[in-house]
Amino acid sequence: MSVRVGILGATGAVGQRFVQLLDDHPTFELAALTASPSSAGRRYREAAKWRVNSPIPDDVADMEVVATEPNAIADDDVDLVFSSLPSGVAADVEPAFLEAGYVVSSNSSNDRMAEDVPLTIPEINPDHLGLIEVQRDERGWDGALVKNPNCSTITMVPTLAALDRFGIETVHVSTLQAVSGAGYSGVTSMEILDNAIPHIGGEEDKMETESRKLLGEFDGASVSLHGADVAASCNRIPTLDGHLENVFAKLATDPDPAEVRDAMREFEGADLHSSPDELIKVFGENDRNRPQPRLDRGYAGGMGIVAGGVERTTEGIQYNCLAHNTIRGAAGASLLNGELLVTEGYV
Amino acid sequence: MSVRVGILGATGAVGQRFVQLLDDHPTFELAALTASPSSAGRRYREAAKWRVNSPIPDDVADMEVVATEPNAIADDDVDLVFSSLPSGVAADVEPAFLEAGYVVSSNSSNDRMAEDVPLTIPEINPDHLGLIEVQRDERGWDGALVKNPNCSTITMVPTLAALDRFGIETVHVSTLQAVSGAGYSGVTSMEILDNAIPHIGGEEDKMETESRKLLGEFDGASVSLHGADVAASCNRIPTLDGHLENVFAKLATDPDPAEVRDAMREFEGADLHSSPDELIKVFGENDRNRPQPRLDRGYAGGMGIVAGGVERTTEGIQYNCLAHNTIRGAAGASLLNGELLVTEGYV
Amino acid sequence: MSVRVGILGATGAVGQRFVQLLDDHPTFELAALTASPSSAGRRYREAAKWRVNSPIPDDVADMEVVATEPNAIADDDVDLVFSSLPSGVAADVEPAFLEAGYVVSSNSSNDRMAEDVPLTIPEINPDHLGLIEVQRDERGWDGALVKNPNCSTITMVPTLAALDRFGIETVHVSTLQAVSGAGYSGVTSMEILDNAIPHIGGEEDKMETESRKLLGEFDGASVSLHGADVAASCNRIPTLDGHLENVFAKLATDPDPAEVRDAMREFEGADLHSSPDELIKVFGENDRNRPQPRLDRGYAGGMGIVAGGVERTTEGIQYNCLAHNTIRGAAGASLLNGELLVTEGYV
Amino acid sequence: MSVRVGILGATGAVGQRFVQLLDDHPTFELAALTASPSSAGRRYREAAKWRVNSPIPDDVADMEVVATEPNAIADDDVDLVFSSLPSGVAADVEPAFLEAGYVVSSNSSNDRMAEDVPLTIPEINPDHLGLIEVQRDERGWDGALVKNPNCSTITMVPTLAALDRFGIETVHVSTLQAVSGAGYSGVTSMEILDNAIPHIGGEEDKMETESRKLLGEFDGASVSLHGADVAASCNRIPTLDGHLENVFAKLATDPDPAEVRDAMREFEGADLHSSPDELIKVFGENDRNRPQPRLDRGYAGGMGIVAGGVERTTEGIQYNCLAHNTIRGAAGASLLNGELLVTEGYV
Repeated sequence: MSVRVGILGATGAVGQRFVQLLDDHPTFELAALTASPSSAGRRYREAAKWRVNSPIPDDVADMEVVATEPNAIADDDVDLVFSSLPSGVAADVEPAFLEAGYVVSSNSSNDRMAEDVPLTIPEINPDHLGLIEVQRDERGWDGALVKNPNCSTITMVPTLAALDRFGIETVHVSTLQAVSGAGYSGVTSMEILDNAIPHIGGEEDKMETESRKLLGEFDGASVSLHGADVAASCNRIPTLDGHLENVFAKLATDPDPAEVRDAMREFEGADLHSSPDELIKVFGENDRNRPQPRLDRGYAGGMGIVAGGVERTTEGIQYNCLAHNTIRGAAGASLLNGELLVTEGYV
Repeated sequence: MSVRVGILGATGAVGQRFVQLLDDHPTFELAALTASPSSAGRRYREAAKWRVNSPIPDDVADMEVVATEPNAIADDDVDLVFSSLPSGVAADVEPAFLEAGYVVSSNSSNDRMAEDVPLTIPEINPDHLGLIEVQRDERGWDGALVKNPNCSTITMVPTLAALDRFGIETVHVSTLQAVSGAGYSGVTSMEILDNAIPHIGGEEDKMETESRKLLGEFDGASVSLHGADVAASCNRIPTLDGHLENVFAKLATDPDPAEVRDAMREFEGADLHSSPDELIKVFGENDRNRPQPRLDRGYAGGMGIVAGGVERTTEGIQYNCLAHNTIRGAAGASLLNGELLVTEGYV
Repeated sequence: MSVRVGILGATGAVGQRFVQLLDDHPTFELAALTASPSSAGRRYREAAKWRVNSPIPDDVADMEVVATEPNAIADDDVDLVFSSLPSGVAADVEPAFLEAGYVVSSNSSNDRMAEDVPLTIPEINPDHLGLIEVQRDERGWDGALVKNPNCSTITMVPTLAALDRFGIETVHVSTLQAVSGAGYSGVTSMEILDNAIPHIGGEEDKMETESRKLLGEFDGASVSLHGADVAASCNRIPTLDGHLENVFAKLATDPDPAEVRDAMREFEGADLHSSPDELIKVFGENDRNRPQPRLDRGYAGGMGIVAGGVERTTEGIQYNCLAHNTIRGAAGASLLNGELLVTEGYV
Repeated sequence: MSVRVGILGATGAVGQRFVQLLDDHPTFELAALTASPSSAGRRYREAAKWRVNSPIPDDVADMEVVATEPNAIADDDVDLVFSSLPSGVAADVEPAFLEAGYVVSSNSSNDRMAEDVPLTIPEINPDHLGLIEVQRDERGWDGALVKNPNCSTITMVPTLAALDRFGIETVHVSTLQAVSGAGYSGVTSMEILDNAIPHIGGEEDKMETESRKLLGEFDGASVSLHGADVAASCNRIPTLDGHLENVFAKLATDPDPAEVRDAMREFEGADLHSSPDELIKVFGENDRNRPQPRLDRGYAGGMGIVAGGVERTTEGIQYNCLAHNTIRGAAGASLLNGELLVTEGYV
């Protein structure tokens, strides 16, 4: 079975990752590429300043880019679109696609916390897709909107999900985030060479709220947020890709580090093409200084989570986790949600 | 009044900082330079591979380097020596100087937690110098040994001291540490370019134990450790100088961020030459992304602490702090302890 | 004697360097700051996002920024203005100031090669200021316009001037340029981390043409270009400040490396406040791996040239040179031209 | 046909690259791993601190490492060994293997310029293998020794070979070299962060002499050096992998840039497994700022050469070239020579 898909905002950094990840995908067939009006009508190879670390696929290079509006792709027989639009643009454009009946798997940050929008990681809370029924009832859309979380959130939440059997009460997390998370031009070299920046606007809030929604319970009508308190300090450092995070978790019970590592290793992935067999790779005591961004961001093609440094604290546990922020943390997250939407019958 | 001083291990990275900081010092006169046997007998300009960012002082350049043993400086009329020896070497050498009657202000990590050795930051716990009497009684030394804490510890402890009026119960701290903290050859470029390393051997332990001793009470006979639990995650990042730290503190009371900032700003420095007038510089809400290593490590000539990003959490407070790791965090810390030893009459 | 000066484009990166360098200047008194209309009317501390590595001078911080037009500073009694405007803006604005009678010392790249505009480095070709008479005749200006060269050009030309006694015939130069040369936002971190960029638009041309004008002869009416062929390859690398350049020069004669080093060392500076006593510092054979950007860019407060690595080639000589690109290569160059204009009686 | 091979010095950085490149090789079967005495007897996974960016092959991980001496691999039925020993060690060890009859394809720098040792790039001078007969006659070895050039040399020489039809008379080359070229611990982070180093000991000489041998003529008895003068300036910059080089070549004829690009593109590879179909990839005028290390070092699996920026100069041509220094510039170069040795019947 093949599903024809489109990419909204296909020329940007995340858009290019979508193109790369969709190359040779077993289910999805790339049928439409949209961009801003200035790029519409041009070949993709000319419209996109290609910067991903593999050559631009030949068949995509010659596709024509169209405007980001439902009419423009009306004849392309597309059922599912991936969105990596800036959130300001997405707030206007995504509803238009939903009204036109498209299923939208979006990486844009708008509406992630809306009560009737599923915020989903397939390995963590696939049941939250049930919110689509609520969404359709309330908004009268034929389509469906699903969001994936922010890159810094998605790095940590799978480990928290694995540890929730021990009762997570409080989370303090410090991040060491790569510059690619801010987009191609988001961080200037003068800002970051020989430096670090101890705050990323909006990022701390996203980690604190999105985590609780992702770990929350869906009762058929709404999602109740998880009860844990989450406080985040987000730092930008001079790395290209891969967010590293230091987590301190207060737990209701008192597992030892070996139990914590086992809980992470045993946490099950999803039976989807882009989900790793072993979702969380865990380094033990002999590899105390792992995970590291440059060495570990490529695990499972950038779709896996890597953890390590598990140590007991007085109140619970501390450890480190890492994921590739533009694959698992952006385009790959939306793609995986798309795979789940197909499996669950929404496409 | 002039005090003649020596530097043990004068050719290394910290030793060079001592030379730089002692240039034009109002009280200390540099009278002896020691190094390993292979350097003994050479001029300092030849023995030291000078890498500090100011020219080597002319008068020091031509001084003769001698072996690191009390006899070698016996004729130099030196009363106080600063030590930046590797801890393994220091464990053998420092006692020899103490037996010979020297006062030793040491940056080396050995014996910092010894019960009769004062671990001192002059602005925080000058009264701990009283341990010198205990030390002399127990060890029969004529001299006196005082230690300063590790660079990552000293960055955080002044802020904790300022906040202890609110009742510090638990501290979770993540560090983003500069490569100079590992010495000139401690971190290879292959390890750290486009990367971060989430563990520094021994560093987490030092932060957890030294902090509690520094904040502890001295009752005239011994120091009781502060009751706060401290858990640390130490990361190395690609910056040259300046350790940045994210602190999450659980407090007994509930101050708002303005009260926390005021408490830090009002914290008093020491009346010593190298102690800044305003020990802790605090950035407010309009400078949310400060302190930053490259921009702020030079505050007060590298002897100040810079803080910012103060935010309330459910259990207390979070904030960031920063200091220059090879000035306030190493040579400058020993120098300041030396100034205190003079003022307090131990030299 | 005090000369009241203004800065056109005072809020940008080079504008901030002007402010820094003018602090405590013995001759110049900063009297006017201009910026784009959106900043006009604001205090400098609010209009400028201050990023220079020393605090903003208190008296300048409270000055009001005005629009970049002659009328706006008419009451300030200013005789000389320094310009660091983008070249597109400068092409419109500088003539207006010249018509209004101001002397303009400009770092902007427009008109550098105009036949009646002196392109000047005070230590190299101060006599070219004579073009001002030609300029006034032709353009009917009361003021005077003098330009300084591009940062990559000015790093190399003093060494070429020193070597021209040996007969320079051909120059091949490769540059390793710092990111600050492109302005604060000119190079993104994604472009340059773990990377180098082997071309800088317009830069190669500037080195090839400006060098020949600077080294050319002024006969009282015009400047004839120097006969040497210059070919440049300009590379951007991940350094913050300091351009390093590899020069291969074909010479008419055959000096040995010691003669070449002597020629550089003996080259005389100008008798001006901001010109170093020893214009070109030269490392010898025992420091073969110098100059280096981080270690040597601070020489003479950033106003000096540092050279080294002199070796014979079959056709001549090869060596390396370095200068601080935003001090000697930009604001400091204009400032020094301003000092020359005063000394020569044009202000 | 399968050839059993060994790696001398298998645990080091280049040794690990050999292991990686030999994985799934169609001809070579890895049968022996040697290392220093301290590693002998251990499993490879324990002896090697694996740092290559792909997992250690399972079958290699469990192989036993033996001492680097002919006896230690005598029972392994190995015919060809790859050597990545430090040159000081290689000078002692390689002759022992040659006397024992092994064919040695070596990346070590000793003996590269020896008159009876072929220094070979299969696409450039495969006929130089004929020196093996001379070598056997003179040294009485049953084995055969072939060397590949230094990483900085091999980046440039294929482009020079392509351009020699235009008559190369003089070459000036500046390199921007990655830190991995110095080995894992060769460049400290303190040396290179925010910096560049304008000299690499021995490297300039290697480029100047090896290039002339590689491009020289073999007349059946000896190799006469190519007549071009080569002068090099070698710089280390903060990149991980990929050497970028700026070349200025004086030519006997006057080709235009398009002819130069065509000459490079048309230059033929070798009919060997690891030689790219298109040996030199050439960027044209629309990609003036390529090649770049991070973007282009992966071309052809790291075995290709990438060029660009071709411009005319008064005397000839200038352009940039790039190759992956630890693949094409080290392990891959030896491997390719090994493939040639098999094809030519020496193994």
